[in-house]
Amino acid sequence: MSHRQQQIDRFCSHLGYQFSNRQLIEKALTHRSASNHHNERLEFLGDAVLGMVIAKALFAKFPKVDEGQLSRMRSNLVKGKTLAVIAKEIELGDFIYLGEGELKSGGFRRASILADAFEAVIGAVYLDSGFDEANQLILKLYHKRLTELDPSEVTKDPKTRLQELLQSRRFSLPEYELLSVTGEAHEQTFEVVCVISEKSIKTVGTGSSRRNAEQLAAEKAFYELQKALAS
Amino acid sequence: MSHRQQQIDRFCSHLGYQFSNRQLIEKALTHRSASNHHNERLEFLGDAVLGMVIAKALFAKFPKVDEGQLSRMRSNLVKGKTLAVIAKEIELGDFIYLGEGELKSGGFRRASILADAFEAVIGAVYLDSGFDEANQLILKLYHKRLTELDPSEVTKDPKTRLQELLQSRRFSLPEYELLSVTGEAHEQTFEVVCVISEKSIKTVGTGSSRRNAEQLAAEKAFYELQKALAS
Repeated sequence: MSHRQQQIDRFCSHLGYQFSNRQLIEKALTHRSASNHHNERLEFLGDAVLGMVIAKALFAKFPKVDEGQLSRMRSNLVKGKTLAVIAKEIELGDFIYLGEGELKSGGFRRASILADAFEAVIGAVYLDSGFDEANQLILKLYHKRLTELDPSEVTKDPKTRLQELLQSRRFSLPEYELLSVTGEAHEQTFEVVCVISEKSIKTVGTGSSRRNAEQLAAEKAFYELQKALAS
Repeated sequence: MSHRQQQIDRFCSHLGYQFSNRQLIEKALTHRSASNHHNERLEFLGDAVLGMVIAKALFAKFPKVDEGQLSRMRSNLVKGKTLAVIAKEIELGDFIYLGEGELKSGGFRRASILADAFEAVIGAVYLDSGFDEANQLILKLYHKRLTELDPSEVTKDPKTRLQELLQSRRFSLPEYELLSVTGEAHEQTFEVVCVISEKSIKTVGTGSSRRNAEQLAAEKAFYELQKALAS
């Protein structure tokens, strides 16, 4: 058995999954800098499987939580930074096959390479044995994160977060004002300004509904307010 | 049988799917303007199911196409505009339950409301009978679009599209120059400028790889070039 094959076996036992088709996991661990048989197509597939599994899990776990909060929780759980952390937990970096240039520049530590390879591994498991196995593996790897999720804390919507930050500093509440509605009746764009008078902050958000526009304006205002409070 | 129930039956025969749990389809067709029991959570779920089904279908249909093209094809197939068109094909707008304000302003024609309700219907089918049925329904509704997809035509990457547009006008090819690399070795950001000298166009793209930065710069340059050629 070659060194590479031994490595792959070690990774599979870290992962807790044995492949029927070894070519799949070999490809999943191969970065484009190392070979033409690289992991990017598997990454595309794995991304979709992961997104679906996490959406399904959140939907079932939080029956009272609204769509905006579910979306934000999902974004947090599947963003590159989170994937790179999980990749490190299963020591994925030690097993990625990189080209020389990437090796020298420490590519095995780069968050984007780790995150992409993690998605590719998910894609490989899905192709190797179907949705149920991939689902089970993802839920195992995310177990702690899903168990500890608190939607009320982690993922307040921007307007709520802004309001709470203002209240904690005893500022008055923000004002939202509709600036314009453009477009035809069935395809309108709303433009809203959010004003925090004490700090002379004015931010504008646009969206396909007044609500979306307000949330976007609030998000920008939150960011501006944080900067103003820090300086 | 109430008028609403008759309507729902008519929609289900348009859709070609009969629900075991009628509450699911009733909720999927209810906009937030009409009731607290609205379709937004189902939309969240349906979005994930749809993304997965389309990714899987593209992955299988185009074994030689790279990840970037697969992603662009998927974006095209699941973007709001496409979903709204499919929603119109199954006459979804006639069956959405809207509040009075939305009714008056023609909400049943608004693309975002149609697209969201379409995703909610997918989510409802998934909950009603599982992934395989949802998969089958989506593939049926997308049949023509998937059959007619030509990755070489629809979804060239930005650098290729820019090059072809320039060649068709007998301009010289764009030049890409690396402006900066910042960040630590394993977390670098690349900044690239794309120059089209004949049109004095200079656009900058940033990304986690030089390749991504170039594609982004090319995309902006393509847009600028189109504007310049149109004026």
